[in-house]
Order: sequence, then structure tokens, then C-alpha cells
Amino acid sequence: MWHTLKYLLIGPPLPTRELEGKRLNKIRALAAFSPDALSSIAYANQEIYLGLVVAGSAGLALTMPIGVAITLLLVLVAFSYFQTIHAYPSGGGSYIVALENLGTLPGLVAGAALMIGYLLTAAVSLTAAVAAIASAFPVLWPYRVPLALLFLMIITLANLRGIRESGTLMAVPVYFFVVTYLGMLAYGALRLLIEGPGVPTLPAPPPRVPLSLGLILNAFASGCTALTGIEAISNGVPVFRPPESKNAGQTLLVMALLMGLLFVGSVGLTQEFSVVADGEETILSALAHRILGNSLAYYIIQLATMLILTVAANTSFAGFPRLTAVLAEAGFVPRQLRNLGERLVYTNGIMLLALATGLLIVLFGGDTHALVPLFAVGVFSAFTLSQAGMVVHWWRERGAGWLWKLVLNGIGALATGLTVLIVGVSKFVAGAWITIVLVPLLVVMFLRIRQYYKEVREQLSLREYPPMTKIPSAPRIVIPISGVHRGIFDAVAYARSISQDVTAVYVAIDPEQATHTRETWERWFPDVPLVIVPSPYRAVLKPLLDYLDQTDQEHNDGQLATVVVPELVPPRWWQGVFHNQTALLLKAALLYRRRRLGYQRAIIDVPYHLRSGSQPPAQAD
Amino acid sequence: MWHTLKYLLIGPPLPTRELEGKRLNKIRALAAFSPDALSSIAYANQEIYLGLVVAGSAGLALTMPIGVAITLLLVLVAFSYFQTIHAYPSGGGSYIVALENLGTLPGLVAGAALMIGYLLTAAVSLTAAVAAIASAFPVLWPYRVPLALLFLMIITLANLRGIRESGTLMAVPVYFFVVTYLGMLAYGALRLLIEGPGVPTLPAPPPRVPLSLGLILNAFASGCTALTGIEAISNGVPVFRPPESKNAGQTLLVMALLMGLLFVGSVGLTQEFSVVADGEETILSALAHRILGNSLAYYIIQLATMLILTVAANTSFAGFPRLTAVLAEAGFVPRQLRNLGERLVYTNGIMLLALATGLLIVLFGGDTHALVPLFAVGVFSAFTLSQAGMVVHWWRERGAGWLWKLVLNGIGALATGLTVLIVGVSKFVAGAWITIVLVPLLVVMFLRIRQYYKEVREQLSLREYPPMTKIPSAPRIVIPISGVHRGIFDAVAYARSISQDVTAVYVAIDPEQATHTRETWERWFPDVPLVIVPSPYRAVLKPLLDYLDQTDQEHNDGQLATVVVPELVPPRWWQGVFHNQTALLLKAALLYRRRRLGYQRAIIDVPYHLRSGSQPPAQAD
Repeated sequence: MWHTLKYLLIGPPLPTRELEGKRLNKIRALAAFSPDALSSIAYANQEIYLGLVVAGSAGLALTMPIGVAITLLLVLVAFSYFQTIHAYPSGGGSYIVALENLGTLPGLVAGAALMIGYLLTAAVSLTAAVAAIASAFPVLWPYRVPLALLFLMIITLANLRGIRESGTLMAVPVYFFVVTYLGMLAYGALRLLIEGPGVPTLPAPPPRVPLSLGLILNAFASGCTALTGIEAISNGVPVFRPPESKNAGQTLLVMALLMGLLFVGSVGLTQEFSVVADGEETILSALAHRILGNSLAYYIIQLATMLILTVAANTSFAGFPRLTAVLAEAGFVPRQLRNLGERLVYTNGIMLLALATGLLIVLFGGDTHALVPLFAVGVFSAFTLSQAGMVVHWWRERGAGWLWKLVLNGIGALATGLTVLIVGVSKFVAGAWITIVLVPLLVVMFLRIRQYYKEVREQLSLREYPPMTKIPSAPRIVIPISGVHRGIFDAVAYARSISQDVTAVYVAIDPEQATHTRETWERWFPDVPLVIVPSPYRAVLKPLLDYLDQTDQEHNDGQLATVVVPELVPPRWWQGVFHNQTALLLKAALLYRRRRLGYQRAIIDVPYHLRSGSQPPAQAD
Repeated sequence: MWHTLKYLLIGPPLPTRELEGKRLNKIRALAAFSPDALSSIAYANQEIYLGLVVAGSAGLALTMPIGVAITLLLVLVAFSYFQTIHAYPSGGGSYIVALENLGTLPGLVAGAALMIGYLLTAAVSLTAAVAAIASAFPVLWPYRVPLALLFLMIITLANLRGIRESGTLMAVPVYFFVVTYLGMLAYGALRLLIEGPGVPTLPAPPPRVPLSLGLILNAFASGCTALTGIEAISNGVPVFRPPESKNAGQTLLVMALLMGLLFVGSVGLTQEFSVVADGEETILSALAHRILGNSLAYYIIQLATMLILTVAANTSFAGFPRLTAVLAEAGFVPRQLRNLGERLVYTNGIMLLALATGLLIVLFGGDTHALVPLFAVGVFSAFTLSQAGMVVHWWRERGAGWLWKLVLNGIGALATGLTVLIVGVSKFVAGAWITIVLVPLLVVMFLRIRQYYKEVREQLSLREYPPMTKIPSAPRIVIPISGVHRGIFDAVAYARSISQDVTAVYVAIDPEQATHTRETWERWFPDVPLVIVPSPYRAVLKPLLDYLDQTDQEHNDGQLATVVVPELVPPRWWQGVFHNQTALLLKAALLYRRRRLGYQRAIIDVPYHLRSGSQPPAQAD
């Protein structure tokens, strides 16, 4: 049944030879790389609004100036990445650019910042997608966490199946959003020109704190999340049709233009119409309500917002596993992250991202606003390292016009670096500290993992290892039993088939039951000795392990006793919850006990399969 | 290190003989049983407020009438339970009363409703505790989920250690809350009399929906959570000093009086002062602010509220494991729930409650308001079944004054039953449906679990089972290898020590590596055959299992090949994430494969322990 389900959800396995790329034209490439960048206006606007509304209408009057400042930053970063695209036609993600130009440590810092960035893109986009749809259908508002997890599950399954980010399926929501949203903004602007701003639906709430520089910087820092995703194209230059760099560069400029239009347009209209939202609606939903009323068009806009945000989360599922596979190849993260699964995707990377994203959604209560402070500091750190790397790149190359290029990337590095500072300071308490702590922790982890793999390689090496000569004698065997019942007969028979030296052990929590067990045992197995170990504290494992240690020491015969574990196996795996799991715990305890006396202990598992009620009885073998 | 940590957190194991009860005087008993009941005013008030505020000041004007209706219900339920206490001096929880008087099915329904009730008491109390403290310190507001989980962890550890709910530690917060809160209410009432209501700090928000009967019933249904916890004393009559029933009854009446005072007092003052709260503050915090200003006294009140709510969550940790232990004894839930752990507490029950509560907190984003709709319907179902059981009880007994007692419990059953209806209907969409679906599911689960245990007992029985005669011949052995390295040498040696018939198998994802592996193998183990199995889809397990099935069928010698699994064991268990875990997956797959041909397959695990970098190299055994 599990296999049928897996087959249905994930699809049949694909042979290795099907692994090949497909080139994209500019229309498809824009759809593939832009969802994250375009959809970030949804939460960026929300955050600027929430940052300013605490200062009442005086605060909200600053919406547009802050929007313009962020748009200028956008232009600068876009042109910086335009240069990266031309310098790295084989793909220049922040990790690669920082690694090649600045060295291993900055490269790993960029890698860590990128990993966190992908994670937050997924979490923020999904929670914002849910907020968009729950704004339209308030009955969904209390279920935001389960809904966000549901969306996450769907995306995870689609990616385990091996969805192509470049597929038509992904392009539809992107263009649907661009067309409907630009249409709404144009209609709103027209109404503003003809009818004027009109009366706001809700009055601006009274100011709770005075307007201050800190508050403005805080709103600016929140709004900087509008830039997330702008670096995506620079990672994927090779999938463009030739001439790759030229096409990718043009696509980047079109994307930046669309980002700017959507951002400035929605920020501007929000301010002009004096739109205010209450606790259970996003500001973009309130804006759409204001422009479109409670019409079908409003619901279409919310649907489009939800869809593009979901697709944006999906782009993390393309980028994160690729990044971790590159890091795994170099031994900086667990090796399994480089395994291609049955469907030719990095299954482990996808699962890791899904788990971490789910954890973030859950820990922050599905609340975009709580997640955003963690976001910008990581993204802008990666921006800064990438730009700084480009400065070194131009300095080393010194080709035609290198100075201008160096200066442009330098200004980009300074501006994004300054933004890191602003975001880091103004959002520190609200959550940026988490990212600031996490990045160096991850870098240390990367380095220690590489060290671990080096040590394992040395220990498994066969160099100077002597060939195997002697075969050890038959093992001494101990069988722990939970009582005398049919579940232990196979285990005793197996033990006797491989050794003459077999002892059973029973841990006695209740002395009366111990007496009964001994009597039954002697009736069925008169020629196998049974040892009864008392347990005054009701533990089972500890007395057993102590017994093993003690008898091993007494024998001192160059080997440890083999433990034969009789294990009841229920008809379905989940029915394991109905049993004590002593066998499982015992096996784990034996496996992880450090070698004593220089030897290893073999563990033999002899299962006894229980039938479900309807099956015919098994034979007594 | 793990053991030291466990010892520090949980404490040393306790011998079984220390299991005995201690009788409580009324002062201590009140502290032990009342936290849940007294603290429920915190969320009940909040819910009435949230239910009415959507209708603006017209809605809020109904706060007091609804409060009075709920208080009348409280009086009725209190007297009903007063009778239960005298009829069941050995403890009359809803499960017992329903089981004995109404039969198994109603008993299980009450049991399921109680389980859910305990769960929600823990989740609601913890999130409300966090809301109380985050109202005083708004910087904590975004971290409500992690904070609630932290509180949960502390309570869980304390209970695993074996905290006594009757201890002084628990009594302090209860009386601290009662004294400070009643003091605040008295001071508020005094100011109201002298100064009059004054100007509200915030204006009532404009109505968003008109006042309707549905809205009023909805607010009533939310407020009924004020009664949760009132049944606690009836469970615990035997721990009172003799005369048990008399003392318990008096304590119940005092508790009900305190509940009524706290509830009516805070509801009344909220309405008289026209207190309004914004999104990031509870209404009780706003009330305390209104009465006490931003003084130290305000912070003390919030602290007291937080503490009693935390202690209230703790009472679930006393009740839930005891209930599941009773159900486990009867075989309705997994048996392990009846095991007394090292510290003489129901460790598994505590862990189950902790996990389920954590899940609830997480799924509902740490939001009390989202959890409350699930709450009352379960609690009032248990009330109703318990009262109905008492009606049957009086009818059967027909002692002195039985008719009056029957009528009182009958009215109680009707009133609480009606409340179940009101809550079920008005809160259905908001979340009551979850409880309504869950209770019958749990009951079905209880019955099926009992059936499962019956089947297992039959299958393990030795009746008519023939004694063991023949010893099987030495097993055929297959060793799957991941390559030729030091990690497999012990496994090959062990296999050869117990059998002559040993074959190694290598699954080839990359044909080149397969050739290399064969060459190395033949150099080190010239006399052991190696089979290479190709894997075009990059899977490891499937080709291996197919190979085993195929060779078992070919041999057809009355047994299945034993699989010897060479397993790399890293120095620390968590370093397992750096390895592929193929051994673990293989063992699990072999264990859970249904028996084929009527035989069982033994699995032998031969570990190879890796050293951490600093340890000296192991000998080659």
C-alpha cells in the first residue's frame, strides 16, 4: 500500500541517463526565476505598513518616501547583478563568487547566508500566501499554520516528483499575477486621477509611539525584503538560450523593472488612498478591497497573490537542494545531500528544506510578520559578499572598462553592506539576532563536518592493514526474554543452530512473575540455562547491560557474547506503538555502546511476525 | 553525558516501595485542585470580550449579562459535583461515573472527552500564560510559540521528576493569585464607586457586524470555558483527610465561590470601565492597566496570572497520565501507558501529553483564541455524561432523599447538555468540529486496541503448542557490502565463524566502481564469493531485497538466508546524520517484510565503531 501511494504521489523511478538540461527562452526564463522577486512586494508592503502604522497617520505619510529609497537600492543591486551575469556566464551564485574571489571562509559565510535565505523565502512566501487567501476568506484565519503546512506538503511532494521550475505549470501563475496586478494598479491610478482619493474605509489608528529616526529605519529595513530573489537569475545563466549572458542580462532588467513598477505602484496607491488594514487582513488585500470593492476581481487578485507566493516558495525548493549538493560534494554538509533520488532530484535536500521550513512556520505561529526580521539580514549579507567578490574579480581581471565596473559593484557592495548594518541593528531584537548567530554557527559546522569526513576516511583506509587470517570460534550467546511465549521459540532455535553455548536472561520487575517464568521455561527448554536478574527500579535495559558486561569480564575469552533478540513484529509497522519496544531500545543500546575490551558485539535479531486477526495461523516451524 | 544530564534533570531512580499517598488538609487540597478552575477566568473573559467586541460597544454592553448566565451555570454544576463527591468517596471522575452507571460506550466517550479536555487545558493554559506575560512585555509577543513550548518543557521535566501537585511549590502561586487578584478587584470596585468609570483609555472599535442572537450565544459558548476544571475535586476525594467527602465537598464550595467572585468581578469591572484591548494585549491585562496604571502592581498581577495558568497546565500533567494508566490497564490504549517509570510516575503518559500539547500549540500558532473553540465542547460532554450517570446512580440506589438528588443532577445534566449543543453549533466552524470528530474516533480506537491485544494474546499462547524438538542446520549467510574497507572485516569474520556458506553482495550504481570493488575484494577475501547486483535506478535496498528473495527461492531449503549487516557506528549517535543509514534502512526493511514461505529471517548486526579524532587507533582484531 505504501508503495502504491508512493508511486502515485512521487511517480515511477527514472533511470540516470534522463538527467539533462533544457534551454529556456526569455519568456520562460523570466517565469522560472522571477516569482520570488516579484512576489516579495506582498510582504515588503505589509512590513512597511506595520512598521509605520504604530506612529499613526504621520507615520503612514512616509510610506512613499521609504518605497522610493528601496526602489533606488533595487536599481543599484539590479545593475550590480547585471555585471555578475556577464562575468560568470556559467552561473555566479553568491557562494561561487565569494568563494572564488574572497576565499573559503567568505564563501562559506555566503553559503550559510544563502541557505538561511532559501529557508526564509520558503517560510515567508508560504505564510504570506496563506495570509493572502485568509484575508479574502477570514474563516481560514485561525488555521494559518495547518494551511501553510498543507501548502508546504504539496510543494514538497511536487518537488520530490521532480517538477521542473521551468515548466509551463510554473509560468502560468507568474504571468497571471503580473497581468492582473498591473491591471489593478493601472485601474486604481486611473480612479485616483478621476475621482480623487475619497474617504478612507477605516480611520488611521491613533499613534502609539512618536515618529523617530529609529522607526523610519526600522520600516526601511522591513521593506528591504522587497529585493529578495533578485539574485536568482545570476545563478542560472547556463539555462538561457545562447547568447546566454546577453539574454539573462536583458531578462534581469525586465524583471527589475516589473519589481519596481509593482512595488512603487502598490506603495503609492496605499498611501494616496490612505488604506488601513485591521489585524486579520493584509495591507495589499485592503488595497485591493479599496480599488475593486468586494467584487470577483478582488478575489482573483488574492488568488493570484496566493499562487505567485506559492510558486516563489517553490523556487527555494529548486535552489536550496542544488546549493546543499554543491556543499556536500565538497564535504561541508552530510554526504547524503548529494544523492540523486529515484526521480533524479536531490531528495534529501528537498526533505531537509521541507522539515526546516515546517519548523520555522510552526515556531513563528505561521506569522509572516514574525519571520521577516530574520530574513533581510541574511539575504543582504549574501548580496554584499557577492558584490565584494565582484570588486576583487574586476581588480584581478582588469579587462576593458574594468574601473567603471569595479566602481559600480563597489557602490553596490557599500549600499547593501550599509543595509545589512541598518537591518541588523534595527531588527536585532525582533529576530535578526537569530540569523546573526546562525550564520557563524553554520560555518563552524561546515568546517567540522569536513574534518569529520577526513577522519572517517583515514579510519576506513586499508593501507597497512594486515590480511585476515584466523576465523574466530563460535560465539557465546545470550537471549534476553520477556517471558515464555511463542515469540521466543524461533530465537532459541536459531541460537542453538549456531552455537552450543546459549543462556537465556529474564529481568524480574515482579518477583512472583519471575518464579512463574522459571517454571514455564524449565518445562519447555530443560537443557538451556535461564538466569534471572532482579530489577528493583523497574528498569529493563540497565540490569541486562550490566549482566552482559559482568559475564563478558568473567569469561575474558577474546570476544563479547552475541545477543540474540527475539522481536515481536506486529502486522503493521505503526502497531509497534502497542508494544514496549524493548527489543528496539536494546538493539540501539548495544549498537551504540562503545567497544569494550577492543572487541565488537554482534547483535542477532530473530523476528516473530504477528498476524492480523483475519489471517490464517502460521505453522509452528 | 546523557546520563549525567538525565540524572540532573530527572533525578535518581526511586524504588517501587516509595509509592504511597499523603493526605491533604483543605488548604493544601484547594491549592492542589483549583488552579485550572480559578485560572480559567483568564481566557474565558478574553473570549467573551473577543466574541462581543465585533459588535462594537452595543456588543460589549452585554458582557455582564453573559457573565451572570455563566455564573448561574457554575452554581448548578458545582452543586451537581457536590453530590458526586458524596456518592463516590473513592473518586468519581466522569469516566468512572459514566462507565459504572451508563455502560462501556458512554464511559469511553467520557474518557475520550476527558483526554481531549486535559490536552486542551494544558495547551490553552500555557498559551494564555504566555499571553499574560507578553501583554506586560510586548517584546515577547512574536515569540509566543517558542515561549509556550519552553513553559511546556519545564512542566514536562518537573513532572518526569515527579513533582507532587500537592506540594507547597504549587500552593504558593495559587494563593498568590487569589490574594493579589481579589485585592485588585476590590481596589478597582472602590475606585469605581468613588471616581466613577472615567474616560476609557481606548475608544470601542466601530461595530463590524450587527448584534444578533448567534453572536450572543457564541460569546456565551466561549465564556463557558470559565467552568473548566470544576470537576477536579471529584476525582481526588481519597486524598482528602477524613471525613473525606465532607472535606472535599466544603473545598468544592469554597472553590466555586472563589471562581464566581473572580469571574463576576473581572467581567463586571471590564464592562463598567469600558475597557478595550488592542491586538497584542489580553483584556485582563488591559483591565489591570486601567485599574493599576503602569505600576509595579500591574506587573505583579500579570506575573500572578502567568504563574497560576502555568500551574493549571500542570494539573493536566497529573490527571492525564492517571487516566491513560487506567485505560491502559483495561487494554484500551497502548499498554506502555501503565508503566511506572524510574521516578514512579507514568513517564509515557507524561511524554504523550507533552507531545500532543506541543503539537496543539504549534498547529494553532500559540493562539489561545484559536484553541478555545475546541475546548468547551469536550469538557461539557464529560460534565453531561457524569451528571447523567449520577441520575442513573440515584435511581438505582434510592437512598434517603434520592429524588431531590436525582432532580438536581438531572437539571445539571440538562443544563450542561444544552450547553454542549450551544457550543457545538455556535463554535462548529471555528474548531468545535475537531473535537466532535475526534471523540468518536478515539472511542473506535480504544475498542480496536483492545481487540488487537486480544489477538496478540491468543497468538502468543503456548496452549497446544508442541515442544521444540529439532535444531535447525547452520544458516546460509549473505553480507551486503558498501565497498571494501575496514568497516566490513569484522562482519565477514563473524559470518565465517558461524557458517561455511557465506556470500557477499555489492549493489552497483556506478559500473566503474563495481569493477574496482571486485578487484579489491578478491585481493582481501579470495575464498568468499562476491555477487554484483546492478542498480540502474540508483536504489540500494530494492535490488538487495530482490536478490535475497530470488536466491531464497532457488535454494528452497526450509530456511531463509541470514543477513549479516556490517554497520559503521560513529563516535556519537547524532553523527549518524553524516552517513547514508543504509544499514538502518536495510534492517528495518528486513524486519518488517512479512514472513515468506512460512519462515522468519534472522538479521545479524556487526558494528564497526569509528573513533573520534582524538582517540588512539583501535587494534585490528
